[in-house]
Amino acid sequence: MVQQTAIAPESAQAEFRAELIDAGVLVATSVDGLYQRSATFESVVRGLERRISAEGGGRYEPLLYFPPVLPREVFIRSDYLRSFPDLTGSVDTFVGDDRDHADLLRALDNGEDWTQHLVPAEVMLCSAACHPLYPSLTGTLPAGGRQMEVQGFCFRHEPSVDPARMQVFRQHEFVAVGDPEHCIAHRDEWLERALEILSGLGLPVSKVVANDPFFGRAGRMLAANQRETTLKYEIVCPITSVESPTAITSGNYHIDHFGNPFAIRTTDGQTAHSACIGFGMERITLALLKTHGLDPHAWPSAVRAQLEI
Amino acid sequence: MVQQTAIAPESAQAEFRAELIDAGVLVATSVDGLYQRSATFESVVRGLERRISAEGGGRYEPLLYFPPVLPREVFIRSDYLRSFPDLTGSVDTFVGDDRDHADLLRALDNGEDWTQHLVPAEVMLCSAACHPLYPSLTGTLPAGGRQMEVQGFCFRHEPSVDPARMQVFRQHEFVAVGDPEHCIAHRDEWLERALEILSGLGLPVSKVVANDPFFGRAGRMLAANQRETTLKYEIVCPITSVESPTAITSGNYHIDHFGNPFAIRTTDGQTAHSACIGFGMERITLALLKTHGLDPHAWPSAVRAQLEI
Repeated sequence: MVQQTAIAPESAQAEFRAELIDAGVLVATSVDGLYQRSATFESVVRGLERRISAEGGGRYEPLLYFPPVLPREVFIRSDYLRSFPDLTGSVDTFVGDDRDHADLLRALDNGEDWTQHLVPAEVMLCSAACHPLYPSLTGTLPAGGRQMEVQGFCFRHEPSVDPARMQVFRQHEFVAVGDPEHCIAHRDEWLERALEILSGLGLPVSKVVANDPFFGRAGRMLAANQRETTLKYEIVCPITSVESPTAITSGNYHIDHFGNPFAIRTTDGQTAHSACIGFGMERITLALLKTHGLDPHAWPSAVRAQLEI
Repeated sequence: MVQQTAIAPESAQAEFRAELIDAGVLVATSVDGLYQRSATFESVVRGLERRISAEGGGRYEPLLYFPPVLPREVFIRSDYLRSFPDLTGSVDTFVGDDRDHADLLRALDNGEDWTQHLVPAEVMLCSAACHPLYPSLTGTLPAGGRQMEVQGFCFRHEPSVDPARMQVFRQHEFVAVGDPEHCIAHRDEWLERALEILSGLGLPVSKVVANDPFFGRAGRMLAANQRETTLKYEIVCPITSVESPTAITSGNYHIDHFGNPFAIRTTDGQTAHSACIGFGMERITLALLKTHGLDPHAWPSAVRAQLEI
């Protein structure tokens, strides 16, 4: 019997995390998946942003940057809570008076759950960069639909030793809203364009059919259905495992998942469909650091030139 | 009796907000104080970052970018909850099974408070850019203390029509930790340096004694005491009112407020003191837009040159 000599994924993840921290590229915190980022790390992210954004080539409405929280009612309407409750970040705050504050502090000092003295705020942490976009599209789209470019911080509660599984990270997205053909073409053209951009940066990428991490028993069926209907593709790249490469970009066809709750219609009165390509800025940066080494100034000159590093 | 003809601050705020939105510099959401930012807005922020960071001139440890959330235990130790409970953002998430999820969705569908089915996550929204720094300094400082540069998103729950009172914004900070003289000198030198940077960008700034918005009855005493001991100065600039200019930068001497809970000591065994200067990136950007006009490409060339716009 042949001995398995491959490093178990989790120890490879912990090893790469330790390398990143030793090199000062990331700084650890007391919470898994939460890092402080060095100026070096950030300069790669900004280089990527320029490179990816340039590929839009004027075909998109001007880039918008979204804050890390979004209106609670938009989050609810996006139906995220039904499929991914475990990844959710709901924001609570305090709205009481002096007496309520004294009660809160007493609970805190007694080691009780002081958050019972808070109430839900008007906002939630953002789960996907494109979610805050859809309420602004309610109504009838112009002929030909719309094409938008957005970037934002996303929060997903999934503590992990894998440096590529951060709890907070940025997605840079190109989104199309319109009829089904428009949306599918958008996703498929962008998947090819993303493969070109990423392989042009020296990353050994490939495209695979994928599914979202739907929650629970019902989620397993949703995931199987999503794969069967090839709604989601991921561009994967080895970071801490060749056998289980990491998704660094994804292309998604949402059908009417957003058009329906946000009442977005095409000129012929149909519910609009939508699709997006999402570049995972932290994950692409980590893939580059793994592939080319921890010092971006020592990367191949062709890569540095593209990222203006 | 003389008629008051000055525009009431709130209508001036609403008017400037409408101008920013009409010009596409900011995009409104359904929550007051929460905006999507245009690439134009962001290019000013990045120009400011370069300009301010260059002023550090190698005297600081390498810049770190902090994520918009921080470990809950760090937040608790910072004692923010005692003084500013109303500004707090606590993050809840879901950790249950299929049955708990069904209960959550039933509450949601019945219009009940579904957040009762969540539990506190390991993180809170970050209140001030420098808070996540202190736990990394626990122990004895090198002789002469330390000087650090950080940037991060802050959350403060204070919905407002004033575009300068965002719920999410960035602070760029220079922080000193060490003995009292070191910290006071850091704050005071940086206040002068900040006045130079900001007036060099054409902003009509001035320095004033200030206080933090401490909560409640006890807070009024804390605020009075903070003013009396001149722990906090703000650099203010008219944005929507000449009579009530807006704080766009602040310099703070914390005494041992962080050194104590985070067990930071100087070489002679004393509890370390700390001080910071915090540049409000969104507020400075708004001050520039108000002063020089809504199109940065039409700003005075000396200002554009400094911001590389």
